Amino acid sequence: MFGHKNVARLPRGYPQFFDRGQGAVIWDVDGREYVDMLCSWGPILLGHVDPEVEAAASTAAARGDCLNGPSPVLVELAELLTDTVAHADWAIFSKNGTDATGLAVAVARAETGRGQILMAHGAYHGIAPWSAVPGTPGVLDQEVSSTPRYDYNDIESLERAVDRAGTDLAAIVVTPIRHEVRRDLEDVKPEFATRSRELCDRLGAVLILDEVRCGLRTDPRGSWEPLGIRPDLSAWSKALGNGHPIAALLGIRALEHAATTVSATGSFWLNSAPMAAAVATLTRARQADLLTSMTAAGSAFQQGLRDQASAHGLVVSVSGPATMPFMTFDGDDDFDVARVWAAACAERGVYLHPTHNWFLSAAHSPAIISRVLDATDLAFGRVAAWS
Amino acid sequence: MFGHKNVARLPRGYPQFFDRGQGAVIWDVDGREYVDMLCSWGPILLGHVDPEVEAAASTAAARGDCLNGPSPVLVELAELLTDTVAHADWAIFSKNGTDATGLAVAVARAETGRGQILMAHGAYHGIAPWSAVPGTPGVLDQEVSSTPRYDYNDIESLERAVDRAGTDLAAIVVTPIRHEVRRDLEDVKPEFATRSRELCDRLGAVLILDEVRCGLRTDPRGSWEPLGIRPDLSAWSKALGNGHPIAALLGIRALEHAATTVSATGSFWLNSAPMAAAVATLTRARQADLLTSMTAAGSAFQQGLRDQASAHGLVVSVSGPATMPFMTFDGDDDFDVARVWAAACAERGVYLHPTHNWFLSAAHSPAIISRVLDATDLAFGRVAAWS
Repeated sequence: MFGHKNVARLPRGYPQFFDRGQGAVIWDVDGREYVDMLCSWGPILLGHVDPEVEAAASTAAARGDCLNGPSPVLVELAELLTDTVAHADWAIFSKNGTDATGLAVAVARAETGRGQILMAHGAYHGIAPWSAVPGTPGVLDQEVSSTPRYDYNDIESLERAVDRAGTDLAAIVVTPIRHEVRRDLEDVKPEFATRSRELCDRLGAVLILDEVRCGLRTDPRGSWEPLGIRPDLSAWSKALGNGHPIAALLGIRALEHAATTVSATGSFWLNSAPMAAAVATLTRARQADLLTSMTAAGSAFQQGLRDQASAHGLVVSVSGPATMPFMTFDGDDDFDVARVWAAACAERGVYLHPTHNWFLSAAHSPAIISRVLDATDLAFGRVAAWS
Repeated sequence: MFGHKNVARLPRGYPQFFDRGQGAVIWDVDGREYVDMLCSWGPILLGHVDPEVEAAASTAAARGDCLNGPSPVLVELAELLTDTVAHADWAIFSKNGTDATGLAVAVARAETGRGQILMAHGAYHGIAPWSAVPGTPGVLDQEVSSTPRYDYNDIESLERAVDRAGTDLAAIVVTPIRHEVRRDLEDVKPEFATRSRELCDRLGAVLILDEVRCGLRTDPRGSWEPLGIRPDLSAWSKALGNGHPIAALLGIRALEHAATTVSATGSFWLNSAPMAAAVATLTRARQADLLTSMTAAGSAFQQGLRDQASAHGLVVSVSGPATMPFMTFDGDDDFDVARVWAAACAERGVYLHPTHNWFLSAAHSPAIISRVLDATDLAFGRVAAWS
C-alpha cells in the first residue's frame, strides 16, 4: 500500500479496505459506515455510484471500452471541455493527473525550446520526477534540476525565480489556490495571478494552471476565470469523471502544434467508458445550481466547525473554498490535535483527514452535513477534554 | 489525436473512430466490420467485451469503483499475481505501462543509490522522459543522460554498457523479446538473458523485465520462466485487465523496502473495477488451454501467411510468438509494400498494422483465422500485381 492511501499514515482506527460507497456514504469491509468527507481524495463530485454517470459509463463499456482507437465520445468530451473551459481550444486525454501535468511541462518545453519550469515550494503536481523534491528516493538530481521554486502568492519571490531562470524560462506552473498538505488553504492573490500572467506574456513563457485538485469544484470555466486570468495550458483529472480514470490537458490554439510533437500515448488513454462518464459529470458540473448547492452545504459545514470550536473554547482556522474545506488547530504544528480530532470523527462515522484538505460532493445534502456536525461536535469535546 | 493512434500515420482507408467491439471483431463508426488483429494494441486478451471480465468489473463498479482506499480485490489480485508470476513476492498497482516501468526505475535507483539504467537501442518502455530518445521534443538532455543503450541480444554490447556505467549501474531493463516497431520480432537469446542476470547479480544491480507488451501472451509465470531466468522487478499492463486500465509492478522480497520509499500514488490507482477485471482475466490466463489454443490459432495464421506469400511469389519474413505475430516484406525498408498490403487487408475487413506487431486473443478462433487468411490472400495478390 503506497503513499497517502496507506492507513499507517493515519490515526489508529481508520479502515484500510472499503466495501462500497453510495452518495455521500462509504462502508469499510467490517461494515462500519462513514460519511465520506474526502470524496476518494477528490474524484467523487456527484456522489459515489452516481446513477447517470454509471449509466453513461456502462453503456459505453458494453460497446467496448478499449478499442483500436477512440469512440466518438472523445470528440463530444473534447468539445464539451473546450466549450466549458474559457482558455481551452483543444484537449488531449490521459489517465492520471501526473500524466496531464507532465504533458503540460513537455508541451511548454517543446514550444519554447527552453527548460526551466517554475513551481511553488511545497506544491504537489504529481509523482513524476520533474516536480519531485530533491533527494526523493529513486529520483536523480539532474531530473529535478530544472524546476526551481518560488513562494506561492509572493510576487517578489516569483520575480526572483523568473530572473534566475533568465532566457531558459519555459513555464510557470501554479495551482489555482494554495492547497498543499499540512497548512491552511489560501486563495490566490489576484495580483499574484495577474503578475504570473504578465511575466509569461512578457517573456514568451507558458502559464500552466494545475486544476487537478480544484477542477469543477470552483468554477467550471477555469478556477481563475473569476479573476479574468487565463492560462495557456491547464491540467485536469480527479473530479472530471466522478471517479472514472481520466485526465485532460487543455490548451490554447498557439500551443496546438507543440502538443502534437511531444511523446504522448497510453494503452488505455482512449478508453470510452471514462470519457462517457466525464461527459455526464461535466454536463452536470456546468449547471450553476450544482456549485451553488455544494457551496451552501460547504459553507454551512465551515461555519458549523467555527461555531463548535468556539463553543468548546478551541481556536481553529477553517480555510479553503466551501467545496474543499480544511481546518487546523491553533499552535498544532505537528498535527497531534488534528489527529485526535480526526480519529474521534472517524470513530463517530465521519471520514476526514488530519493533514489533507477535504472535499464535498453534490451528495452532501443539508441532512448529511448535519450528521457530520453532530460527529465533529463530539470530536471537539474530546479534544477539549484531552488538551 | 496523439501518437500511434492517429490515423494519419496509417495508410488511407483506416478508420479513426470506432463504434464497438465484440470478441475478435470491431466496427468503425461508419458500420464497417473488421477482424481485429491488433487487439486494441495488446490489451484485449480474451476478446472484446468478454462476458466474465465485464461482469466482474461491473459488479465491482456497482459497489463503488473509486473509494477512499482499495477494496479487498486488491489483495486478491496481488495474491493471484504473486502466485502466478514466479519471481514476484509483492505487487504495486497503477494505471499505465509507463507508470509501472517508471516505478521500476525509481525502485532500482532507490535500492542501489545509483543512477544508470541500461536499456536496448530502439526499445519502447513508455513515454516518461527517462526512456526517451535524446532530442525528443519536450524532453531535456539531462532527463535522458542516465539511460545509456545496449544492443538487444548482443552480449558484448551489454558488457560494454555495463563497463561504462561502472559503479553507477542501477539496473538493466529489457523486454522479454525484441519487439520494437519497423523490424522483425526476435526471440531473446538464452545466453543473452543469462548474461543479463549474471551481470546484475555480480554488480548488485536490478534486472527489470518489461512485460507490458508480452505479459500473459507468452508464459503467465513470466516470459523468461521457460529459460529459467527470473527478473528482480517486472512491469505489467496491457492484457492484465482485458482492456480495463491497470498496470502492476511486481518485485522480489529484497526490493520491498525500496518500493515503499519511492513516490507512488495516483487518484485512480486503487480503483476496484479494473482490479476485478484483472482477477477475471488472470484466472483465465493461468489455464494452460488458453495459451495453447491461442498459439495454435496464431501458428496457423503465421503458416498461412508464409504459404500465401510463397504462392504469390513474394518473399516475406513472418516473426514473433504465435500470439504476437508480425510480417515484413523482403527489401521493404520503407514499409511501402507493407502499407499497400495492410491497406488491402483493411479494405477486406482485417485490421492489422504495417509497422507494429499484431496480437491475438482467445476470440481468434480457427474460423476467424480462416476469414483473416481469405483477406490476406487477396492483399498478397494486390501486392504481387503492384510490385
